[in-house]
Amino acid sequence: MPVIQVTLIEGYDEATRRKLCERLTDAAMASIQAPADAVTVAIMEVAPAGYMRGRMPKMPGAPVPPPAALCLDFLAALEARELDRAKAMIAPDFQMTFPGGAAFTSFEDLLAWARPRYQRISKTIERVEEALLGEAVAVYVSGTLQGERPDGTPFEGVRFIDRFETQAGVITRQEVWNDMGELGLSLS
Amino acid sequence: MPVIQVTLIEGYDEATRRKLCERLTDAAMASIQAPADAVTVAIMEVAPAGYMRGRMPKMPGAPVPPPAALCLDFLAALEARELDRAKAMIAPDFQMTFPGGAAFTSFEDLLAWARPRYQRISKTIERVEEALLGEAVAVYVSGTLQGERPDGTPFEGVRFIDRFETQAGVITRQEVWNDMGELGLSLS
Amino acid sequence: MPVIQVTLIEGYDEATRRKLCERLTDAAMASIQAPADAVTVAIMEVAPAGYMRGRMPKMPGAPVPPPAALCLDFLAALEARELDRAKAMIAPDFQMTFPGGAAFTSFEDLLAWARPRYQRISKTIERVEEALLGEAVAVYVSGTLQGERPDGTPFEGVRFIDRFETQAGVITRQEVWNDMGELGLSLS
Amino acid sequence: MPVIQVTLIEGYDEATRRKLCERLTDAAMASIQAPADAVTVAIMEVAPAGYMRGRMPKMPGAPVPPPAALCLDFLAALEARELDRAKAMIAPDFQMTFPGGAAFTSFEDLLAWARPRYQRISKTIERVEEALLGEAVAVYVSGTLQGERPDGTPFEGVRFIDRFETQAGVITRQEVWNDMGELGLSLS
Amino acid sequence: MPVIQVTLIEGYDEATRRKLCERLTDAAMASIQAPADAVTVAIMEVAPAGYMRGRMPKMPGAPVPPPAALCLDFLAALEARELDRAKAMIAPDFQMTFPGGAAFTSFEDLLAWARPRYQRISKTIERVEEALLGEAVAVYVSGTLQGERPDGTPFEGVRFIDRFETQAGVITRQEVWNDMGELGLSLS
Amino acid sequence: MPVIQVTLIEGYDEATRRKLCERLTDAAMASIQAPADAVTVAIMEVAPAGYMRGRMPKMPGAPVPPPAALCLDFLAALEARELDRAKAMIAPDFQMTFPGGAAFTSFEDLLAWARPRYQRISKTIERVEEALLGEAVAVYVSGTLQGERPDGTPFEGVRFIDRFETQAGVITRQEVWNDMGELGLSLS
Repeated sequence: MPVIQVTLIEGYDEATRRKLCERLTDAAMASIQAPADAVTVAIMEVAPAGYMRGRMPKMPGAPVPPPAALCLDFLAALEARELDRAKAMIAPDFQMTFPGGAAFTSFEDLLAWARPRYQRISKTIERVEEALLGEAVAVYVSGTLQGERPDGTPFEGVRFIDRFETQAGVITRQEVWNDMGELGLSLS
Repeated sequence: MPVIQVTLIEGYDEATRRKLCERLTDAAMASIQAPADAVTVAIMEVAPAGYMRGRMPKMPGAPVPPPAALCLDFLAALEARELDRAKAMIAPDFQMTFPGGAAFTSFEDLLAWARPRYQRISKTIERVEEALLGEAVAVYVSGTLQGERPDGTPFEGVRFIDRFETQAGVITRQEVWNDMGELGLSLS
Repeated sequence: MPVIQVTLIEGYDEATRRKLCERLTDAAMASIQAPADAVTVAIMEVAPAGYMRGRMPKMPGAPVPPPAALCLDFLAALEARELDRAKAMIAPDFQMTFPGGAAFTSFEDLLAWARPRYQRISKTIERVEEALLGEAVAVYVSGTLQGERPDGTPFEGVRFIDRFETQAGVITRQEVWNDMGELGLSLS
Repeated sequence: MPVIQVTLIEGYDEATRRKLCERLTDAAMASIQAPADAVTVAIMEVAPAGYMRGRMPKMPGAPVPPPAALCLDFLAALEARELDRAKAMIAPDFQMTFPGGAAFTSFEDLLAWARPRYQRISKTIERVEEALLGEAVAVYVSGTLQGERPDGTPFEGVRFIDRFETQAGVITRQEVWNDMGELGLSLS
Repeated sequence: MPVIQVTLIEGYDEATRRKLCERLTDAAMASIQAPADAVTVAIMEVAPAGYMRGRMPKMPGAPVPPPAALCLDFLAALEARELDRAKAMIAPDFQMTFPGGAAFTSFEDLLAWARPRYQRISKTIERVEEALLGEAVAVYVSGTLQGERPDGTPFEGVRFIDRFETQAGVITRQEVWNDMGELGLSLS
Repeated sequence: MPVIQVTLIEGYDEATRRKLCERLTDAAMASIQAPADAVTVAIMEVAPAGYMRGRMPKMPGAPVPPPAALCLDFLAALEARELDRAKAMIAPDFQMTFPGGAAFTSFEDLLAWARPRYQRISKTIERVEEALLGEAVAVYVSGTLQGERPDGTPFEGVRFIDRFETQAGVITRQEVWNDMGELGLSLS
């Protein structure tokens, strides 16, 4: 039955404030067995001239670009082979781990590894979920894969899950699991 | 730079209140690019005689058992083959999906499926993360598998990830991905 | 010595907010023996993008038309024999009870009952008071009656009191007491 | 959808705090067309060492004895002819007005006036409602009268309404209307 | 680690609100050994229609002209011999006390007393500090004096301190101490 | 007309909380021309399990020993020639400046300087005022001196003022002005 009140400096856009309200509601519901209806969230906005921390006026922090949207955008760029666009979304120490433990730091290496495995591959995304980790946010994307093997055999409905780690608006890490091997669709 | 104040009826234990404070901090940090240090959370506890919603006094809702702990406990029960203990943690419509899409609703069916695949299997858990979904919480558990194949060949370091969905203190769904197939360790 | 703070979604007009402040002050003064001066009320208005209950944005509820004004308006319409105007202010199950227990649901029946009792009657209103009943509000109107009996004899200064019950902007019930009988001015 | 938070110095008993919560809920519901369920009230109690107004510590004001209970108690005392008990509940300038405008300041005068009117009279109370007037509270008591006329004729079901005005724990004024005259039960 | 929230009626200018935030921060830091960074101040501004004390709407009080600026302005006016300007800044019962206990209520008397002491004198101000006294504010100004004695001998670096008392925008009192006597620069 | 609410972790003693309330009242009164009566301060105490900054629980900071009391205590120790007690109240870089600009860092040097000036000296303290400077607090002590000159001549009523600077519970600096020179009581 909690009431959650947030004192926030003026200047955040509506989408950011709504997202904050949703996440605070979720935080309460995950902690206390309350019906959603019993959780009230209100943001009290304060003018900059009426806000001080450490005896200093403050400016609103930058809104955090939604990590889920970032990762979906990244997957779309990769599927479209727009590598430059994808590169703009990753941290300098970005790292990828694929089924079987294959690890890459460059998209070029990844593509070389993938070439003998499938001619074409795309994702049907069923679920995108965020786990908040303090400074970082993990984004879990799951669904099914479809495509064509090098010999032209099509495949579809292959379960996959990706875990991304994002921080400060970029992706620092991607890990991939799928059923390609289980279904005899991998190289091994 | 937000200050988050929660008005809460008295009676929640310390662990629940601390967890709530952490989750609210995470909710703010995931929404606004603020250093952790700039996020203050305070719970103002209110005596039952000073709390009304709908012109009716209220009691504290039950604390929600931490979903992460529930899922780890479930995995431990399963690994120890304590099926009754595991059954006490699942919802009536509980469903499991394993690599290759194998779906089960009973542990007995699962064990029958697993028997020809490995003699012994256990998990080294590296990461447990919660994604808050409103009424439900998804718990992602990942790490590596080790064990022995039916012919006695040992294996280890096999990447896995489990996604659980929990609601109202029980597990409603488990989905599993791993590299067994990719590494030629599956039946297929 | 209470401070009363109301978190309210933006969009209520000034009159509604002032009325709310007055009623909250009265609620405090009626409960705690504090001088008016010690009661502070402040309404913190929150933008719709910063307000959620049940994880859903909310709109301001409609302001409640002041029940006292509604009842005075109704009495004026009735005195002016503007029956259509009066009918627009009553609920479908509206009921009137007059001295001696005479009960009516239509104005026409009421007028037929009144015709042999007085040629002309009007009210001098001295006091209008509201009792808040949760969903409903009772309005008490009292003062004196003046008019002319059927035989032309004038009368004045006859004490009366009306109790109205209002809900959701309409009148559901009217009860009337007066001294007409006591003073030998009634039919009986 | 208002949240009402009251900052109150510690020390008020539970009944007073609950009553305050109810009255604040009523104040909101009478002003804004919100379902009761959408009104949350919370009293934040503050230790005396953490409360100052006018740079001075404060003590909790005396709770106001519920005016409705006071008036019912007064009526019971009067009906039982416990005049001393009734006198302890009235202000020095207490005044009563009865049907026909008969006004009294002493119970003895009232009883002298009533004696030729009825041998015995008692009230069946159907409704007690408070109207908050700032410093004062009006209490409306209504229902029916039953008793015996001086000649032994019984009567019952006679509609009555009393309006009391209370302030600072005592009754300052009582006004009475009833259907005795209308029903030919009065002297006139 | 305190969070200080001020509910303030709308209408104070930015400078006043910033000054208030600074002073509240100082009040916390002087009372609790907290790093400045741990003190958050937020002013929640409330529209006049949403503010009542004593069941009456309120207007913002006049901002208090900063006492330090007032006293510096007064010293400048005096040094420039703009006596009318200085007179506009003092209360009717203004009083000055100078080294040796010389007390004056008029600038003319002061100047007569000063004439044989120095031909010319001016202040180098090093520090201006305010002590808040409730209704009044004391302003301490200290630094060094320089000038010329009647015989033309120059002097400089002579320590002085002035204490002013201000209230409601005017100066009620000035007290002066300095090292003129100690250094053999006074008449005595 | 401000309401000042402080969210504070539980555990500060009553004296500290009262002092904080007084200082916050003063901060408001010095900024806004409000009567003291219109300033309400309330400290909402929060249990440690319900308080987090930077996603970490916090402990109450140490209360700051009242700077005014510290300086008076220091003056008493010095007057009683309890040099060890006085030394315990000063910072390592403590510095004193006396009339004429005489500067000392050790009490022994100070006493050597004072010996030829007066045989005995004591203070009558009339006023102690604090100016809050963020991390530091300046304390102004003023009144009159009395004592005996080396030749046995008594003196009294000599105006003095001391400015102390304190930080983190110790005195970092003392500056002294008085009328000894002006009155021909100094050596010069």
